Amino acid sequence: MSQYQFETVKVTIKDNVAHVQMNRPKSLNSFNPQLIDDVRNAFTALGKDTNVRAIVVSGSGRMFTAGLDLKNNTISASKSGDLARLTYSKRAHLKEFQDAFTAIEGCSQPVIAAIHNGCFGAGVDMVTACDMRYCTKDAYFCVKEVDIGLAADVGSLQRLPKVLGNQSLVRELCYTGRNFYAAEALQHGFVNRVYDSQDELIAESLKIAATIAQKSPVAVVGTKHNLLYARDHSVPEALAYTVTWSSAMLNTEDIPKSVEAFVTKKPANYSKL
Amino acid sequence: MSQYQFETVKVTIKDNVAHVQMNRPKSLNSFNPQLIDDVRNAFTALGKDTNVRAIVVSGSGRMFTAGLDLKNNTISASKSGDLARLTYSKRAHLKEFQDAFTAIEGCSQPVIAAIHNGCFGAGVDMVTACDMRYCTKDAYFCVKEVDIGLAADVGSLQRLPKVLGNQSLVRELCYTGRNFYAAEALQHGFVNRVYDSQDELIAESLKIAATIAQKSPVAVVGTKHNLLYARDHSVPEALAYTVTWSSAMLNTEDIPKSVEAFVTKKPANYSKL
Amino acid sequence: MSQYQFETVKVTIKDNVAHVQMNRPKSLNSFNPQLIDDVRNAFTALGKDTNVRAIVVSGSGRMFTAGLDLKNNTISASKSGDLARLTYSKRAHLKEFQDAFTAIEGCSQPVIAAIHNGCFGAGVDMVTACDMRYCTKDAYFCVKEVDIGLAADVGSLQRLPKVLGNQSLVRELCYTGRNFYAAEALQHGFVNRVYDSQDELIAESLKIAATIAQKSPVAVVGTKHNLLYARDHSVPEALAYTVTWSSAMLNTEDIPKSVEAFVTKKPANYSKL
Amino acid sequence: MSQYQFETVKVTIKDNVAHVQMNRPKSLNSFNPQLIDDVRNAFTALGKDTNVRAIVVSGSGRMFTAGLDLKNNTISASKSGDLARLTYSKRAHLKEFQDAFTAIEGCSQPVIAAIHNGCFGAGVDMVTACDMRYCTKDAYFCVKEVDIGLAADVGSLQRLPKVLGNQSLVRELCYTGRNFYAAEALQHGFVNRVYDSQDELIAESLKIAATIAQKSPVAVVGTKHNLLYARDHSVPEALAYTVTWSSAMLNTEDIPKSVEAFVTKKPANYSKL
Amino acid sequence: MSQYQFETVKVTIKDNVAHVQMNRPKSLNSFNPQLIDDVRNAFTALGKDTNVRAIVVSGSGRMFTAGLDLKNNTISASKSGDLARLTYSKRAHLKEFQDAFTAIEGCSQPVIAAIHNGCFGAGVDMVTACDMRYCTKDAYFCVKEVDIGLAADVGSLQRLPKVLGNQSLVRELCYTGRNFYAAEALQHGFVNRVYDSQDELIAESLKIAATIAQKSPVAVVGTKHNLLYARDHSVPEALAYTVTWSSAMLNTEDIPKSVEAFVTKKPANYSKL
Amino acid sequence: MSQYQFETVKVTIKDNVAHVQMNRPKSLNSFNPQLIDDVRNAFTALGKDTNVRAIVVSGSGRMFTAGLDLKNNTISASKSGDLARLTYSKRAHLKEFQDAFTAIEGCSQPVIAAIHNGCFGAGVDMVTACDMRYCTKDAYFCVKEVDIGLAADVGSLQRLPKVLGNQSLVRELCYTGRNFYAAEALQHGFVNRVYDSQDELIAESLKIAATIAQKSPVAVVGTKHNLLYARDHSVPEALAYTVTWSSAMLNTEDIPKSVEAFVTKKPANYSKL
Repeated sequence: MSQYQFETVKVTIKDNVAHVQMNRPKSLNSFNPQLIDDVRNAFTALGKDTNVRAIVVSGSGRMFTAGLDLKNNTISASKSGDLARLTYSKRAHLKEFQDAFTAIEGCSQPVIAAIHNGCFGAGVDMVTACDMRYCTKDAYFCVKEVDIGLAADVGSLQRLPKVLGNQSLVRELCYTGRNFYAAEALQHGFVNRVYDSQDELIAESLKIAATIAQKSPVAVVGTKHNLLYARDHSVPEALAYTVTWSSAMLNTEDIPKSVEAFVTKKPANYSKL
Repeated sequence: MSQYQFETVKVTIKDNVAHVQMNRPKSLNSFNPQLIDDVRNAFTALGKDTNVRAIVVSGSGRMFTAGLDLKNNTISASKSGDLARLTYSKRAHLKEFQDAFTAIEGCSQPVIAAIHNGCFGAGVDMVTACDMRYCTKDAYFCVKEVDIGLAADVGSLQRLPKVLGNQSLVRELCYTGRNFYAAEALQHGFVNRVYDSQDELIAESLKIAATIAQKSPVAVVGTKHNLLYARDHSVPEALAYTVTWSSAMLNTEDIPKSVEAFVTKKPANYSKL
Repeated sequence: MSQYQFETVKVTIKDNVAHVQMNRPKSLNSFNPQLIDDVRNAFTALGKDTNVRAIVVSGSGRMFTAGLDLKNNTISASKSGDLARLTYSKRAHLKEFQDAFTAIEGCSQPVIAAIHNGCFGAGVDMVTACDMRYCTKDAYFCVKEVDIGLAADVGSLQRLPKVLGNQSLVRELCYTGRNFYAAEALQHGFVNRVYDSQDELIAESLKIAATIAQKSPVAVVGTKHNLLYARDHSVPEALAYTVTWSSAMLNTEDIPKSVEAFVTKKPANYSKL
Repeated sequence: MSQYQFETVKVTIKDNVAHVQMNRPKSLNSFNPQLIDDVRNAFTALGKDTNVRAIVVSGSGRMFTAGLDLKNNTISASKSGDLARLTYSKRAHLKEFQDAFTAIEGCSQPVIAAIHNGCFGAGVDMVTACDMRYCTKDAYFCVKEVDIGLAADVGSLQRLPKVLGNQSLVRELCYTGRNFYAAEALQHGFVNRVYDSQDELIAESLKIAATIAQKSPVAVVGTKHNLLYARDHSVPEALAYTVTWSSAMLNTEDIPKSVEAFVTKKPANYSKL
Repeated sequence: MSQYQFETVKVTIKDNVAHVQMNRPKSLNSFNPQLIDDVRNAFTALGKDTNVRAIVVSGSGRMFTAGLDLKNNTISASKSGDLARLTYSKRAHLKEFQDAFTAIEGCSQPVIAAIHNGCFGAGVDMVTACDMRYCTKDAYFCVKEVDIGLAADVGSLQRLPKVLGNQSLVRELCYTGRNFYAAEALQHGFVNRVYDSQDELIAESLKIAATIAQKSPVAVVGTKHNLLYARDHSVPEALAYTVTWSSAMLNTEDIPKSVEAFVTKKPANYSKL
Repeated sequence: MSQYQFETVKVTIKDNVAHVQMNRPKSLNSFNPQLIDDVRNAFTALGKDTNVRAIVVSGSGRMFTAGLDLKNNTISASKSGDLARLTYSKRAHLKEFQDAFTAIEGCSQPVIAAIHNGCFGAGVDMVTACDMRYCTKDAYFCVKEVDIGLAADVGSLQRLPKVLGNQSLVRELCYTGRNFYAAEALQHGFVNRVYDSQDELIAESLKIAATIAQKSPVAVVGTKHNLLYARDHSVPEALAYTVTWSSAMLNTEDIPKSVEAFVTKKPANYSKL
């Protein structure tokens, strides 16, 4: 399919599961403008593709990602000119970078981050926008932005505290920029499974994605949609919202199909959204 | 007391502690319209009963609950007729079901869920509306809704992410519908104690409830009220709210009583609310 | 410096790190009006002191703090007179007490709580307003307010549930007023490191503070500011806010300085804010 | 219909329009516990009655309402006993009183207040919970609560500033408790039409209700629902919510029916909700 | 400029003022998919065009707009198939339609709606997304959606109550679908000036736009940005936000330029953003 | 009283009404750092003074205020140095300026702005923080900030849209910086009464203040507190908050005193808060 040809991102779709690989191995999958664009475009397109029911994202080569490409980015602009205009013009660049990762969150389907080896800076921003995180035992993470003179501004400060229960740890990681390793990430719930090798990681992540892809898409898409709403609202508001969502969706044919599958112990065959 | 006679729920009150048992053992305490009504009515009444200072909820028979009664419920309605009207009419049914569990949250007193064996689907929705969760070592939990073709709509998607720090796990459980067992539930803080048997679970849950029931009801009720407010508001808002709440409640006789009890090491005798 | 002379609080500043010690050891650092005032004034002043880039707070003597000074406080006022006026007049006292701990949160710099031995009642309110919590292995914590006949109203009910992922545990601690010890606090992420002795605790806390103090203050202050904003807002709101914050701050000289330091492996020398 | 027999409220239904009359003329329709209960029960029942598509509420006798019945109400309770318990017990009474007027707002159908002569205190709280307000030229309104020693607590302070654009006037009315008359009410948009006599007022209000009752109930109910949501949320949130609401409701048969009616110039015949 | 070539929308730019004309006069500027797309694309592009400092939008031909093109739109889709999937697929269509008008609100520059003759249905949704509204004396407006069997879902129910102080009128207009004319629109502040002819309307609207275009773009863009933020947030939040916005923008050269212009009475020459 | 000696503000208290006069007539009461400080300190002190039950604020000399003192203020700082540090340092200055006007809003008592002749820029920010606005017939107002190259950042953009129903007018005033005169201000509800002369304005404003000062302070203070809460929250939230506020305040002696005064037609004598 032509919409999945990107310069720095490789997309493979099989049995309703998409595998998105960041593919700048020589630059350690660091985020240059092209990769940022490709990530945004890939996930925006996948989010609308009703043939895709679950997504795995990984990095090719030595590590998941080294973070922002320090030599090649739109963030460190020139300093001359009016300060208000300098500030104003950065708004658009920053928003575009954020949007690349928000496109992952905005995908209608669940997205699994499969992380091996290093995951630095913008990589942490990225994986906190995914639904689940799995990693290899040699994986390590680093909220690196503080060491470059800036507050992490493409998602880590916004999402990390909401995916991780231990706020004392969140603050330590964000202020010190220290590495945290697979074991610590597992213990505190940043990832929820650790695998021995990248091969195993990818295979198992695709397997979990395949499990999800066999469920009713009405149920899965509705689950993600309502979990996101609930994260950003009070419980009474989230309950009221789900009444409006579900009172329509409960009319689906997938419910009788599912119940029959449950009774007959035969897998249901759901049509696409 | 006549207000605590229900068809499918048994309420026992002793020493200011109420024990609520779901009592449809032959149907594995699955939620049919009667049980839903009884749960709502029982907790609504208990919440106003100033003789009750703490509540334990459990299930009788083989398991805590098998979840929604698939054969007997108001959710899977007929499909003919105008789609807007079909949708609109489901609003009321869904709201009533939600209200049954929100009545638990709305109780002025703390509610302890004592869970043994299976706790499926709507059971998870229910126990996330309780204050604390304890279970037996053979307990297991399942956010089953995704397997029936729907997004969990009576509380799990709204409350589970707020009671559990590990969002990567929350998503995995909600998307895959897999079982999670007592040990994992303990490790990730879904329950905060695991007991060997149901008898021990009930006995210990009642003991914790009894401890709470001996505290000042002004303090306990105010604690629950302000914790709920805090969950759904920002920290500055929650601090401002507690000023308004506590500036009145700090005038209570329970404070000097408590201080005297502390000094004299004799238990205080608090009057009911 | 004259602004750091307080009656009950000792402030030492060295290499851009401030060490704040509560200093009423004979009264177990219990909060009387003087200590409350001194805490508020010390942190308010430190928050504006651009020579200070990280702060450690600890207690001198036997324990971190015994909590509210029950004999000497403005909370337990007389009971005669009009009830509305009694209630109204307590507003100001309560707000002032809250403000002492909110001044910690409001500091532009990260604040590390270094807790040894007992940390009761208002002490828990206090340390939940800090960024990180470290403790000794003999430390124990207690949300004691419920035992004095009141709902914790200076921060614990508002902040504890937001720093700790396990809400079942939060409720248990707040309703039962039981002690929880260093090991449990570590396991559930209330603290994120436990040390053998108070000396080691203070030394290591100061070391972590020193690490932070060597980073770009633009990055550190921006990180705390945006983490606080994110805690109290939805993810989309927090992302939009950080665009406005960072589009100005990204123009800082600290970024090229940091990048150069990274490339040359020599420490950057950041000027003060 | 038996559900519309109330002691102090008279309900007449004709051509899908309900007319609710407060009927304590000798007491100037002042709110005693019975009237409060009847208002709550009448509007709760009407809100679920799909035969009713619009509602007019008025008062029988000399005036719309004199406000709270000062001799006969649950608000002014005794003063002895523990202050916290006194305060706590008032919560339920106040909530019940609020709920009577919130039941008007909660009605799925539009509610028109037709006000003649005096409308004092709780009467203002009541009519701000209605969708539209029409009055006679001899009508006058008074936010009377300030003169009884209390802040208006059943809706006026909450809703009046949201139905009236002029906040300087809102404050003046609430602080001084002065009367404001039909002409001023019209000029500032508190009412949007003034009639010469009560007869004309009722006749015209019923006529507007009849107009609404002939529209698609899917459209009317959805309009009220989304207007209420929009009042309490930001514009982006309200737009997102209406996507969820309308994507279901747009499947209604009422749209082709309406379009055909528009083309053929013959009235559409909509089935009930 | 090639980016301003649209099929159904004409864009003229002169002296930093853009004039956007809806240009389907034969179809009374009714919204078909092409016009919706063109409006969205035109305003999205204009919002980023720093040569444009103010925008006027009007309609060519007999009236401003007749609203949704009933024969040619994506809203009334087929009815067969699974109800959940039917509902789900409408989400995207609705969102796209909303986005066309939100693009007006999202423009960095002020947008003036210059309305002549009829402005029906989606036209009202559109003009409520503009900053100011001016009209001819023969203008009339109609929240028509209720007559087509639907709740207005592309902005009127969300924005109209926030641009108009009189909520009683808002409800009447939305429930009855009646016309409201220039005089009533002026009296209640829906428009804030009425002109005799379309020529005068356009000329005066362009003149006001020209006045705005001569101001500092830093000031004007910041004013719109902060007004929008304030509409959707509490006052304390909006004040805090503007501190973050303005502490950067106050460093602009436009302030000394403006002050000098004020002192010397010579117009300032501001560079573009 | 010593606390009311200010350099640029004159405070007179009589019969529980405070009259605050800005007193830099030679500089047209323009806001220099001293006046900003004095306004903040005066209103902060008055807000806690239980002898004061209502406040009038006016300007001495030729006009109410000419707005920011362009020659003498902390906003236009030097431009050299690191941009992030320049931006950061402006935060404190801006916050302090905002706080001066927020102190007016934060006063427990109602504040009446009595405006004669010109009221420019920061003057508009100031009077929107007052409860009511009255003016002379020669008064005129101007949101002047746009003409100085900045977005109004001390309250006008935040509060003006919430005190004025007509948003089309609000935008026009903020974008064009044009004067608006007493008649227009009255028509659109920015002020709610216009007087012939400054003497009459002051006399009548003091009279309205005196009326308020004779009411129960429990009622008046509660009314302002709850109106402010309601402005910044949804209706359901505001209703819930007032339950908590009023359930305590309804226990006041002022209610029986008020009812007796009503019955006996003799003025009540309320004790101070």
